[in-house]
Amino acid sequence: MCDICVMNAVKEKMLSRRSLFKAAAMASVAAVAGATVAAPPAMAKGHHRVEDMTHTLSPDFPTYFGAPQFSMEQKFNYAEHSFNLFEYTVNEHTGTHIDAPLHFSADGTSVDEIPVSNLVAPLCVIDISAKAAESADSQLTPADIQSWMQKHGDIPEHACVAMYSGWGAKVGTDAFRGFDGEKQHYPGFHVEAVKMLMEETGAASIAVDTLSLDYGMSGDFATHYAWLPTGRFGIENIANLDKVPASGATLVVGAPKHKGGTGGPARIFAMV
Amino acid sequence: MCDICVMNAVKEKMLSRRSLFKAAAMASVAAVAGATVAAPPAMAKGHHRVEDMTHTLSPDFPTYFGAPQFSMEQKFNYAEHSFNLFEYTVNEHTGTHIDAPLHFSADGTSVDEIPVSNLVAPLCVIDISAKAAESADSQLTPADIQSWMQKHGDIPEHACVAMYSGWGAKVGTDAFRGFDGEKQHYPGFHVEAVKMLMEETGAASIAVDTLSLDYGMSGDFATHYAWLPTGRFGIENIANLDKVPASGATLVVGAPKHKGGTGGPARIFAMV
Repeated sequence: MCDICVMNAVKEKMLSRRSLFKAAAMASVAAVAGATVAAPPAMAKGHHRVEDMTHTLSPDFPTYFGAPQFSMEQKFNYAEHSFNLFEYTVNEHTGTHIDAPLHFSADGTSVDEIPVSNLVAPLCVIDISAKAAESADSQLTPADIQSWMQKHGDIPEHACVAMYSGWGAKVGTDAFRGFDGEKQHYPGFHVEAVKMLMEETGAASIAVDTLSLDYGMSGDFATHYAWLPTGRFGIENIANLDKVPASGATLVVGAPKHKGGTGGPARIFAMV
Repeated sequence: MCDICVMNAVKEKMLSRRSLFKAAAMASVAAVAGATVAAPPAMAKGHHRVEDMTHTLSPDFPTYFGAPQFSMEQKFNYAEHSFNLFEYTVNEHTGTHIDAPLHFSADGTSVDEIPVSNLVAPLCVIDISAKAAESADSQLTPADIQSWMQKHGDIPEHACVAMYSGWGAKVGTDAFRGFDGEKQHYPGFHVEAVKMLMEETGAASIAVDTLSLDYGMSGDFATHYAWLPTGRFGIENIANLDKVPASGATLVVGAPKHKGGTGGPARIFAMV
């Protein structure tokens, strides 16, 4: 019996069993319509729910350079081969993703070398959505950090400091990139804000809900060059910052772990 | 001033600042030599450390089919462009990765649709390393599950049930794939074991520290066909199962989230 014939025989045998369980499985999927789910028993000690901070990646996900950066090729399909399998090609800096220090330095830390202690970290969310709604060219400034600290206390060691600008809601529209034919328009971290984080806090990462750590108008990547070469990392296109508290959540950054990488698409959760 | 000139000017300005901080960053990296790290303050309520359950991915990572399944192409390099960036191409079923239900079904749940409630889940580790050391063709059986339950109690809802065979230690050697010219030799889940998990428990996923949910000798993928089409998922090539307890840890599965995918490389942590 050839491999495929054996597969098909097994498949037939399994059919009755599968139809039994499929109903149960479908019901379970249907029960989790949203991204927010109650934590399983093992998490209940410290946190009560998990928030998915990751956009779904597809070929039409907006990119910094404007052209598509993700593609899939089906290598096996169920009708012919009795299983499905894709190969995909992706620019490391696509979708909800990591900027490792190596992205903007000659020999900095690569994505596989980022310490786990910085990938599971306290999350601080700084809301600049009010000024971002007035101007797409707004930046998160030292005054915004100061204001957060007055309300919530010091920024913890290893923390990820995230900019919430409200841009996640625009991800399916041209306004996400805000390209006017010459420049892009979306908020980012002002270089003086990241200098303040480096000098006055133990923050290990920053996150933005936009395409770049620098605001869209930036011509010099000042924030990238100030932050990444120091061994700290960044997260771009993070989702759902409006669904987590300003302080108290734990971010779990499922960074990719390919050797020598400068970053890559990541699965990110917040334990709230 | 051209973009690259501006980048270089900024880079020069940052140099003194960077050298200051580089020392601190290096010290921080050096402090985290192993994969095990103490949990940051925000995790301390429920868990006291984080274990990285992910192998580093590189072009020479062993594969089921034998040929390399991961490659990187450098699109920008620091010497020429003042930043580094790679594009990579990967077969979804490479390295530490997910098998989504769609991998072995015509229209099952794709990797982006796996409920978050099943991605952050109680971890149950069943140790079959003693019999695996005696025979590479060993399988995890219903008796092994029964024995685990007698010691540790019921398998929790949403749980990931992991097979620890000791194979992770062989990952750099030919013994990991154990190919004899005709068949592969490594442990996996016996089909009757996954049927037992489906019928008697609320487990949502299984994990193996080998190349396949089925043992290497399998010619029919019986375990894949029994488990995946029911809406449950699998993890292959998970690392470091010897560093987590048999019961009580929470697995956080950073599955990739590309639309319609059948699986993909994942970053996986255990909160212990």
